[in-house]
Amino acid sequence: MEPFGTVAILGVGLIGGSIGLALRARGLASEVVGIGRDRDSLAQAVRRGAIDRATTEVREGAESAEVVVVCTPVDRVVEDVQRCTEAAGPDVLITDAGSSKRQIVESVERQPGCASVFVGAHPVAGSERRGVAHARADLFEGRACILTPTSRTPSDRLRRAGRFWTSIGCRVLEMGPAEHDEILAYTSHLPHAVAAALAGSVPVDWLPLAAGAYRDGTRVAGADTALWTAIFRDNRGPMLKALDSLRDRLASFQYALMTDDEDAIRRWWDEARRRRAVFDELAGAVDPPRQADDQPR
Amino acid sequence: MEPFGTVAILGVGLIGGSIGLALRARGLASEVVGIGRDRDSLAQAVRRGAIDRATTEVREGAESAEVVVVCTPVDRVVEDVQRCTEAAGPDVLITDAGSSKRQIVESVERQPGCASVFVGAHPVAGSERRGVAHARADLFEGRACILTPTSRTPSDRLRRAGRFWTSIGCRVLEMGPAEHDEILAYTSHLPHAVAAALAGSVPVDWLPLAAGAYRDGTRVAGADTALWTAIFRDNRGPMLKALDSLRDRLASFQYALMTDDEDAIRRWWDEARRRRAVFDELAGAVDPPRQADDQPR
Repeated sequence: MEPFGTVAILGVGLIGGSIGLALRARGLASEVVGIGRDRDSLAQAVRRGAIDRATTEVREGAESAEVVVVCTPVDRVVEDVQRCTEAAGPDVLITDAGSSKRQIVESVERQPGCASVFVGAHPVAGSERRGVAHARADLFEGRACILTPTSRTPSDRLRRAGRFWTSIGCRVLEMGPAEHDEILAYTSHLPHAVAAALAGSVPVDWLPLAAGAYRDGTRVAGADTALWTAIFRDNRGPMLKALDSLRDRLASFQYALMTDDEDAIRRWWDEARRRRAVFDELAGAVDPPRQADDQPR
Repeated sequence: MEPFGTVAILGVGLIGGSIGLALRARGLASEVVGIGRDRDSLAQAVRRGAIDRATTEVREGAESAEVVVVCTPVDRVVEDVQRCTEAAGPDVLITDAGSSKRQIVESVERQPGCASVFVGAHPVAGSERRGVAHARADLFEGRACILTPTSRTPSDRLRRAGRFWTSIGCRVLEMGPAEHDEILAYTSHLPHAVAAALAGSVPVDWLPLAAGAYRDGTRVAGADTALWTAIFRDNRGPMLKALDSLRDRLASFQYALMTDDEDAIRRWWDEARRRRAVFDELAGAVDPPRQADDQPR
């Protein structure tokens, strides 16, 4: 593959840092520039090898870039895309990594000059940890990256965005921004809300008796507050619908338990188990099988 | 430590098999006998080294035992304790591994001869996997085991039960059966119900876009249907209360989202995050730190 020229990454945290590491590990860009506000984080990104050089000036970072990837929290993406569009040349491709898309894409396209250079993207990968310290070159390996073009997205930019995200390891898919938000409300945002609801329901004094089910069920409740507050707000409508589905599902269980209806409890559990088995099969088809840490010796 | 004589394990699955492996790995018993209904599983338990010998007859397995551990599903424990009490000598200690305790302990104590030999126990360890194939000698290492004695439990049996569960690696605690059930409803049974509610809420067609938050949040929904139906039914009252707490917690979030109350969303998430951090600290104090698979190189 022909390497990219300069790739600028705005926001070099877990996601931006992992993009930088992947680009540099694979020799995919002539130069990776990190743009950020916090000098210490930028210095750390250079030390970790996630970027070649760092700047706190959007103009300086974006002006010679062939590709700019905006990896800031979803409530900052629109403004950052605008700043990068103004700073970069007319041939630039600007893409983002935001977890919600409809509002971002609609707002970006309302801004002068943005629609013709921007392709919304959501690489479905992450961690409850934040910061470049936790970035990994293989974070995107085999992960879905959803591109959300509209009728205003130029086909060459869409092709370039597909090539960019594929180059760092993603399986690239395309769908509309609203469809993206509806699906991700269920597959990602709801699991985060459920983890936090569970974590918030168990009295602290009893935590010494919590074990694996609690540990895994609440893991992502450790994620960054500002980041998730912004995602939930940005994807409010679909999120409220997903929460309703969950509450209906809980209510069925509660009713079955209240009436001690053994068959209904069984059926309720079996349906969940069946769906989870489908996920395991899909994950097995994508991820290479690995040694589970609780397998027999 | 003076080793035990014969230890009989009724139900040689994940839990019973792990007890056998731990006893044999540490040389804690002169003989470990597995009692079960399924000859294939018993043969597998012998092959895996979880038991020295196997039998399908409770009398044959229990008659010479110093300790009998009943590891059958919670809806079979009472009857199995009764059968073992009848089969074993007067000096036997009978203990169990059921995840709910009040109904089991009350029913066992109503049966002739049982109260004077039985000590209810719940080793807080497990997996969504079932069967002796997944048993591990270190399953109980550092895990809590809750003993639930009553005023009718003889102190020597309580001491012996403490010694038994400690010997295979547990941190032994004591509390009343009702208190146990109230706490475990929150720390274990609720996380299982939540995992299943989440798994049941996400449409199957969208699972290719589910990632880590879904994977960990639904892991235990893969657990055995019969086993969990029995636990939920057995611990119905406390479980309904725990479900109410969760639904209240979800309702607060839903209201904050509906009114787009940024501060309320933040506070809601922060409270969950704070509690989860307490769990991490506690877990860090118990488990030795290990290399996370998503740490930077």
